[in-house]
Amino acid sequence: MTVALLTDKYELTMLAAALRDGTAHRRTTFEVFARRLPEGRRYGVVAGTGRLVEALAEFTFTSHELSALSEFLDTTTLDFLSAYRFSGDIDGYAEGELYFPGSPVLSVHGTFAECVVLETLVLSILNHDTAIASAAARMASAAHGRPMIEMGSRRTHELAAVAAARAAYLAGFTGSSNLAAQQRYGVPALGTAAHAYTLLHTTESGPDEQAAFRGQVAALGVGTTLLVDTYDITAGVANAIAAAGPQLGAVRIDSGDLGVLARQVRQQLDDLGATNTKIVVSGDLDEFAIAALRAEPVDSYGVGTSVVTGSGAPTASMVYKLVEVDGMPVAKRSSRKESHGGRKQAARLAKASGTVVEEVVYPYGQEPLETSGLVARPLTVPLVAGGVPVAGHHPATDLAAARERVAAGLHSLPWDGLKLSRGEPAIPTRVVPIQS
Amino acid sequence: MTVALLTDKYELTMLAAALRDGTAHRRTTFEVFARRLPEGRRYGVVAGTGRLVEALAEFTFTSHELSALSEFLDTTTLDFLSAYRFSGDIDGYAEGELYFPGSPVLSVHGTFAECVVLETLVLSILNHDTAIASAAARMASAAHGRPMIEMGSRRTHELAAVAAARAAYLAGFTGSSNLAAQQRYGVPALGTAAHAYTLLHTTESGPDEQAAFRGQVAALGVGTTLLVDTYDITAGVANAIAAAGPQLGAVRIDSGDLGVLARQVRQQLDDLGATNTKIVVSGDLDEFAIAALRAEPVDSYGVGTSVVTGSGAPTASMVYKLVEVDGMPVAKRSSRKESHGGRKQAARLAKASGTVVEEVVYPYGQEPLETSGLVARPLTVPLVAGGVPVAGHHPATDLAAARERVAAGLHSLPWDGLKLSRGEPAIPTRVVPIQS
Repeated sequence: MTVALLTDKYELTMLAAALRDGTAHRRTTFEVFARRLPEGRRYGVVAGTGRLVEALAEFTFTSHELSALSEFLDTTTLDFLSAYRFSGDIDGYAEGELYFPGSPVLSVHGTFAECVVLETLVLSILNHDTAIASAAARMASAAHGRPMIEMGSRRTHELAAVAAARAAYLAGFTGSSNLAAQQRYGVPALGTAAHAYTLLHTTESGPDEQAAFRGQVAALGVGTTLLVDTYDITAGVANAIAAAGPQLGAVRIDSGDLGVLARQVRQQLDDLGATNTKIVVSGDLDEFAIAALRAEPVDSYGVGTSVVTGSGAPTASMVYKLVEVDGMPVAKRSSRKESHGGRKQAARLAKASGTVVEEVVYPYGQEPLETSGLVARPLTVPLVAGGVPVAGHHPATDLAAARERVAAGLHSLPWDGLKLSRGEPAIPTRVVPIQS
Repeated sequence: MTVALLTDKYELTMLAAALRDGTAHRRTTFEVFARRLPEGRRYGVVAGTGRLVEALAEFTFTSHELSALSEFLDTTTLDFLSAYRFSGDIDGYAEGELYFPGSPVLSVHGTFAECVVLETLVLSILNHDTAIASAAARMASAAHGRPMIEMGSRRTHELAAVAAARAAYLAGFTGSSNLAAQQRYGVPALGTAAHAYTLLHTTESGPDEQAAFRGQVAALGVGTTLLVDTYDITAGVANAIAAAGPQLGAVRIDSGDLGVLARQVRQQLDDLGATNTKIVVSGDLDEFAIAALRAEPVDSYGVGTSVVTGSGAPTASMVYKLVEVDGMPVAKRSSRKESHGGRKQAARLAKASGTVVEEVVYPYGQEPLETSGLVARPLTVPLVAGGVPVAGHHPATDLAAARERVAAGLHSLPWDGLKLSRGEPAIPTRVVPIQS
């Protein structure tokens, strides 16, 4: 099975109508952008581009897909689809770039017929991955350099979980619990311990936490992380050091007032001579909870639900809009869904210090901007040319570059752009109108 | 590739430790339940069971998976996994049943080794699909019998979209825009029209909406749905009827004040003799917006973002907890994460009128409940026996039965259980303690 049926039915009926009335082969540009950031967010992080470029190659209609479509499509359309390969160009923001409302994150160029059918796949991938990366970057910023493990696979669709692990890693997480994400994308797989394993060591005479800890240390070594909150945390820490000795790698606390407990556990570990044993905390952490723990003796964070669900914003709400037909700008005229016609490109303007001050979106092919002494960095780069991926956008091998882009992007924001509180986009976006 | 790596790393390290210390083959029961419903919700709808039962058969470790694991697992564990097939029993709530906090939605029985590794897959599927179905059922209830199209694929991960379409259909939607959901699960594929198709018909002298409408009608027939809000809605409706005649199937409005516009468009259609032309509305609809349109002349709803993201609750937050080891009840002792040990079953008590009054969760194998004249309907049914799916839980063929369960479940709630406003669970859950 290919990815070609991950598509809304109306794209294919529109294709059929356009093939029939002769408009299907007009040259078009579709643009992906977000009208706004999730409420109160100050920036977003583009993610999914690498996965999209990879998925394009699988967007083909074999007999398996065509048989499902023959019920409602005519022969001309089915023939077109059976020969379909995207042969156009795609440019846009590299994965890991920050974006703001109106940023032309992706532009897809080709015939109407070859572009219209990609709408759902393009948006599904970018909306999901960008939502996760945008939330994850806020968490990474709040964690202030402390390691974070993404461990939310169980709270989202089983395959969305793999993409979420990749997006979280891209945005600054240290790794993920998800094994498929390691295999597919090289995301470091990390793990601690389970309450079930401790509970498993129950005997007729009651729980035996120390037996569980001895078993884990025997199998995984003293560098392992022991989960100390199944029963009583103070007893758990004592059992952990009794089982592993003071060289124990880490203990994990998964419930309760994490700040108070981290301080108590740190004191207890130090008193037991386990001064190098680290403390991992988890349990309903989001960017605000992470920030609130900054002053506590916490060594790393395990983050689940909030990161894989975009911390309140599970979709980036990007849209895929036709903006140009045979060189003519086009736009829907709707009161609250304003969009700007014409193919575009974008640059971000920064002071000499590197702090960004403005995003400029301007007609494609126009002369360099008037930058009033600011440094203009182009944001629009080629991703696919003539249907072929441009090097540098592989979903696994180019994650490192994307991670650097996120870090550099956050570093370039004005100081209030990194605030977690609700606010306006960190920098304004100026749309330069088409010269007529 | 199988589904076996859709798993958190720690499940396999815990397995390794249990194999080494001899506890891996203890008989266990893991229970899936939600500690609470999403804030203010009055009921939830179980979904994903059919997909889970199907996925179990693909949970095997081939050389492809094992090679990824050999870096951190010992030979004993790798050998165990290479022979792995789940051979235990699963019982729980049939797909489409309502559930409440503490409902034992699923119980997985087998050795620790064979059960522990399923945690992530089980929870990913149930948490995702249940979140969507629970939101979708509220929308179906708000729509009061009017058809609803799920069209949110573009707002969620590309494969989560397929499962979301299935879950929305299960909970009462009429169908989905997603073609893969039709192919895999038989969810009726529905579609309307795209702004891009109208914009495509731009010429040097400007837009030509009527040419687009003529093209669509020529290709798809007068029964099609024309999208009338690309430019001016009143002109759009006039163009639609001019192109299709008064037998036009439907018009769609995707922006603006939908209630006001629906009334205007209904009047205009009636004046043009198109009295049977239906009105489809879409655009940021959720259960509240749907309910608010109940008095308006709307014939069907297109719902996107809100349904595929669970309308504010993108995960059902179910957990997978070890509750029994070799016949002994076990439970984590944590202040705010209370759970009850022991294998359980459940029944729902109703008055003779059919209105439910209480959910009772009681130890497995216990005698029938004291029901004080109420009718007790068992909720716990066998799903998998000895590793083999029990008939009646196929993800495609049994959707019709699940749809009926949702409808019957909603019908059985006390009147205030269907309110959309925030409130308590529609019925209380009573947990019968283990007789000691």
